[in-house]
Amino acid sequence: MPGNSFGQFFKITTFGESHGEALGVVIDGMPAGININLEDLKIELKRRAPGQHQVHTARQEADLPEILSGIFENKTLGTPIAVIVRNTNQRSHDYDSLKESYRPGHADKTTILKYGFRDHRGGGRASARETLARVIGGYFAGLIIPKVSTYAYIQQVGPYKLANPPKDHSVDRGEINIPDENMTQEVISFLNDCKNKGESAGGIVAVSVKNCPAGLGEPVFDKLKADLAKAMLSLPACNGFSMGEGFKFADHLGTQISSHSEFFGGMEGGISNGEEIHFNLVFKAPSTIGEKAKNGRHDPCVLPRVIPIVEAMTKIVIADHFLRQSAYDSFLP
Amino acid sequence: MPGNSFGQFFKITTFGESHGEALGVVIDGMPAGININLEDLKIELKRRAPGQHQVHTARQEADLPEILSGIFENKTLGTPIAVIVRNTNQRSHDYDSLKESYRPGHADKTTILKYGFRDHRGGGRASARETLARVIGGYFAGLIIPKVSTYAYIQQVGPYKLANPPKDHSVDRGEINIPDENMTQEVISFLNDCKNKGESAGGIVAVSVKNCPAGLGEPVFDKLKADLAKAMLSLPACNGFSMGEGFKFADHLGTQISSHSEFFGGMEGGISNGEEIHFNLVFKAPSTIGEKAKNGRHDPCVLPRVIPIVEAMTKIVIADHFLRQSAYDSFLP
Amino acid sequence: MPGNSFGQFFKITTFGESHGEALGVVIDGMPAGININLEDLKIELKRRAPGQHQVHTARQEADLPEILSGIFENKTLGTPIAVIVRNTNQRSHDYDSLKESYRPGHADKTTILKYGFRDHRGGGRASARETLARVIGGYFAGLIIPKVSTYAYIQQVGPYKLANPPKDHSVDRGEINIPDENMTQEVISFLNDCKNKGESAGGIVAVSVKNCPAGLGEPVFDKLKADLAKAMLSLPACNGFSMGEGFKFADHLGTQISSHSEFFGGMEGGISNGEEIHFNLVFKAPSTIGEKAKNGRHDPCVLPRVIPIVEAMTKIVIADHFLRQSAYDSFLP
Amino acid sequence: MPGNSFGQFFKITTFGESHGEALGVVIDGMPAGININLEDLKIELKRRAPGQHQVHTARQEADLPEILSGIFENKTLGTPIAVIVRNTNQRSHDYDSLKESYRPGHADKTTILKYGFRDHRGGGRASARETLARVIGGYFAGLIIPKVSTYAYIQQVGPYKLANPPKDHSVDRGEINIPDENMTQEVISFLNDCKNKGESAGGIVAVSVKNCPAGLGEPVFDKLKADLAKAMLSLPACNGFSMGEGFKFADHLGTQISSHSEFFGGMEGGISNGEEIHFNLVFKAPSTIGEKAKNGRHDPCVLPRVIPIVEAMTKIVIADHFLRQSAYDSFLP
Repeated sequence: MPGNSFGQFFKITTFGESHGEALGVVIDGMPAGININLEDLKIELKRRAPGQHQVHTARQEADLPEILSGIFENKTLGTPIAVIVRNTNQRSHDYDSLKESYRPGHADKTTILKYGFRDHRGGGRASARETLARVIGGYFAGLIIPKVSTYAYIQQVGPYKLANPPKDHSVDRGEINIPDENMTQEVISFLNDCKNKGESAGGIVAVSVKNCPAGLGEPVFDKLKADLAKAMLSLPACNGFSMGEGFKFADHLGTQISSHSEFFGGMEGGISNGEEIHFNLVFKAPSTIGEKAKNGRHDPCVLPRVIPIVEAMTKIVIADHFLRQSAYDSFLP
Repeated sequence: MPGNSFGQFFKITTFGESHGEALGVVIDGMPAGININLEDLKIELKRRAPGQHQVHTARQEADLPEILSGIFENKTLGTPIAVIVRNTNQRSHDYDSLKESYRPGHADKTTILKYGFRDHRGGGRASARETLARVIGGYFAGLIIPKVSTYAYIQQVGPYKLANPPKDHSVDRGEINIPDENMTQEVISFLNDCKNKGESAGGIVAVSVKNCPAGLGEPVFDKLKADLAKAMLSLPACNGFSMGEGFKFADHLGTQISSHSEFFGGMEGGISNGEEIHFNLVFKAPSTIGEKAKNGRHDPCVLPRVIPIVEAMTKIVIADHFLRQSAYDSFLP
Repeated sequence: MPGNSFGQFFKITTFGESHGEALGVVIDGMPAGININLEDLKIELKRRAPGQHQVHTARQEADLPEILSGIFENKTLGTPIAVIVRNTNQRSHDYDSLKESYRPGHADKTTILKYGFRDHRGGGRASARETLARVIGGYFAGLIIPKVSTYAYIQQVGPYKLANPPKDHSVDRGEINIPDENMTQEVISFLNDCKNKGESAGGIVAVSVKNCPAGLGEPVFDKLKADLAKAMLSLPACNGFSMGEGFKFADHLGTQISSHSEFFGGMEGGISNGEEIHFNLVFKAPSTIGEKAKNGRHDPCVLPRVIPIVEAMTKIVIADHFLRQSAYDSFLP
Repeated sequence: MPGNSFGQFFKITTFGESHGEALGVVIDGMPAGININLEDLKIELKRRAPGQHQVHTARQEADLPEILSGIFENKTLGTPIAVIVRNTNQRSHDYDSLKESYRPGHADKTTILKYGFRDHRGGGRASARETLARVIGGYFAGLIIPKVSTYAYIQQVGPYKLANPPKDHSVDRGEINIPDENMTQEVISFLNDCKNKGESAGGIVAVSVKNCPAGLGEPVFDKLKADLAKAMLSLPACNGFSMGEGFKFADHLGTQISSHSEFFGGMEGGISNGEEIHFNLVFKAPSTIGEKAKNGRHDPCVLPRVIPIVEAMTKIVIADHFLRQSAYDSFLP
């Protein structure tokens, strides 16, 4: 059944295999008359792109977005915006040996179990490359909610943990999205070491959202926290989501939390309360290890590049709920 | 916008305020010709009901389900099944003093921010009472996937943690859904103490699913882990979800996890692989504390009663994906 | 698959078999804070009810609506509104002989083909009784668009055709929704004759909508005319829908229609243009004829009673599109 | 709100303005492992393309489909299939004079009313060019239901009516989809005359579907007739849909129709009964008339080219309902 669309009102539909002709996204539900800036979109894609830093995969693709519809004279038309990115660096012959080999923790085996057939040249839809369509969607979502500030950063990579969370969204996140210069250097050194050894690492991402309007989220199933959780768990390698104090809530008693509204992570009853929203995500270490990982076309750790993707999905969820709620504005007292 | 439905193919739509006439659910997408057993449904509701144990709220309601449609001669018709439960013990006069008071961590304030108007007699849709509709939905979902075994249990309450996870689904979960007799007694004593003090506690729930067919979940947005995360984060007080090793993945390197397929929690690429599915949830301590909590109508901890609700939501997600996948059975090689 | 919901933003989910416990509807997406009037709702239901006129079935049910949720102190809460109507006059023993008999043009046979099982006591979901849930939905939809005036009337019953369309919405539609006194008497006489003979008749309904806001409807699949067509063709016995000049457009040349904007029926490109919307529907003669029809529990013609149902579905479509469009209000120049 | 997707299980999402970069479609929900034939797809597109016959617009575009995803080694992967067609012959400078001019019966004015902004170079999304995405979707839908035969033809153009309906689907439809050689020549002559005069014409299309499985369609809102009606009324210029006997049902009494099962058009209770499905559509004359119509870039009548589009939408509806129903196959007795 269709599972390639996300959002109710601001809806993205993505397509494309990692080694096919192109990847892309159709954005439906965009308001009309909004100015766009193609350079800003390219910057977001570059943040996600491989090859930006030595710790990343050597697979370098220009990832040039081509807008096919929905824009006229640099303004949105209110019609669906289709954007594609060609796969220019497929090198699929590298992967022929993988035809019969199922990597653990990858979708290789489950794709066959589900469909009986797959594009063995790469991860197909399960490739991290799929996420560039999300980044494109996130750029347009951000135009709907220009006052909302979304800021994600690395809190942990393997044994390295961030000692102090950044004070605000202006703190520089350095080369690999860690808002601490010392930790940045330690992690770069650690990940280079991982690459050389064919090792990989996981970690934790923290997300802060400021200026989110109050009242977003629906009371029962479509709580804001529920839709954020779905958005994040739909990311490759993401294995956990927690709001506010998250799993530490298990240790806190009611009297300890009741006077700390920031513990709630910016929502009450699953609806935004106007305060800062914050949540955490965990990503597992990539499954490609050993000799295969040494060929230089795999990241030893997804976290540095996952930051713009997490921000994009966050904006998509909030823009969608913003439009959902806007429909009722005229009925509010 | 509508946010009271869950599921694509096996779809529940719930309604009802905690202090209104009734709560209920409409289940759409149920196959025809399946035998139902009203007694089994009552047992599930009783597992969720308040007043089953001294540690719970004293609010005792019979929670008798009345089936209004979709069943004929004890068989499903394939048409929508509507089930309602009357609110018999509303005592709304107890709550009049709450009209202008917003409890922290509750939806009281955010409901006003969102709608400009609310039923101040109780939590409205944000009440835990809403979850009985989910339990009813879960009973019917279970009939679609009778071989799938879902088993949830308490892993932590406040300072008390389960030392050893249960070996299989036959382990008795005792009075309050803890598969360990010693811990059960400690937690009962602890929660009684909380009640007397007007204190409350949070904790962690673990879920194990056996015999889930392989191939469930869609590759991108509707991954099985994503839909489970949304289902769980839509529960009141749930603040975190993690698959498999969850947040421990931050500490594990790739070589450590690649040979432990159980770490992946029964999915690869977000699609079930036929192995045991396992995930964890964290619930925060209830916000009602102090003098208000001593009136006896509030649980000091949601975890004992949340177990059947978590199982219900798990079954709903799996049954939905099972039907989604079944549509393609005839096309598989 | 679920097929018992209608609407994207203003969404109704209906349930209930004609001979089950109750029929009902859950309305999701209603704005909060709107005053309701239960007496107005009862009047709408009475317009649809059988037994209001001698030409109708003798099956008389009070059709008393019971509101279970979503309303507090006579105001909408913004939460789902569930309304049920008990089946008080089932007399299912009358129908036992029908267990193995499939009426032509009825869903009897196709229900078995689809589900392998059915409630043989009556039409189940395919009964015209299902439509009372639509009338309830239409009442609430109307509260969202109070300025929109919807007016449906009979244009033809069997050989009798309305000579002159009514000038405006104030024209009295008489006993059986025909805005012409002479034709009313002729049709009453004709339908009484049909009843006595076990005969039945079809006809045409015309609908006029005034004060519909411009800009409703989406450009491609969710055109306003497309959603109205679906709404109307989902009605039992409805076999045709036409906008504006409808099938007469086959005879008109471009130069003939270009200067008559009323020919377009209030839409251009499927989007409302602010002018009067008008469309026609055809309903076939009921399939219950001969001896079975003489027992007095079947209408010889659905048209008199179908008028409030058609108006309800029209309001539901327009209210849904009104909310869909409202979400973008703040982005309009 | 998003309105550019159609279908629940077999879902197409279309995009593209008539004078933008490209038009396209994303098809989600396609089964895996089905062989495709690009030449067959091109044939379908050619049937729809302008410039195939002298009576059509002179706007000739190659309409070459480019498949971007979802296909590997000529087989479907089960992932979304994205297909685009470049706009190669935009000549948008012809249209500059139209910037401030709203054509009656076109979406020009309503687009401004809705969005406050439009691509004045052409019809944007409201252009008939949008329909090529539907034809592509229809090709893939047809692969899911290879035994179902869909056959549409012209029954009337302006004053010319088909005397005898074709006996079966093998009857040749000639140059312009009229299954009668004499009428074909008369209509060609008539339409050439229209072109010269700046006149335009409407007409009626008939559709026959053979070998549609029984049991398709959902009992209440998603009746097969309702979804077909929506599909057809979503077509530009389509102003009416009728099932079976259609508007003639107004004249037929119950005793006249009960013994003619073909009158019901292949459905009972809105669910397919396994017999031939037949329905009719009316299309209005194009609004572009007079001097503007004489520039040779507009069709004087949409009917000849609408036939493959109608067949495509029919297949999309049936394939969608086929998959919806397939999910329950294993539960049937």
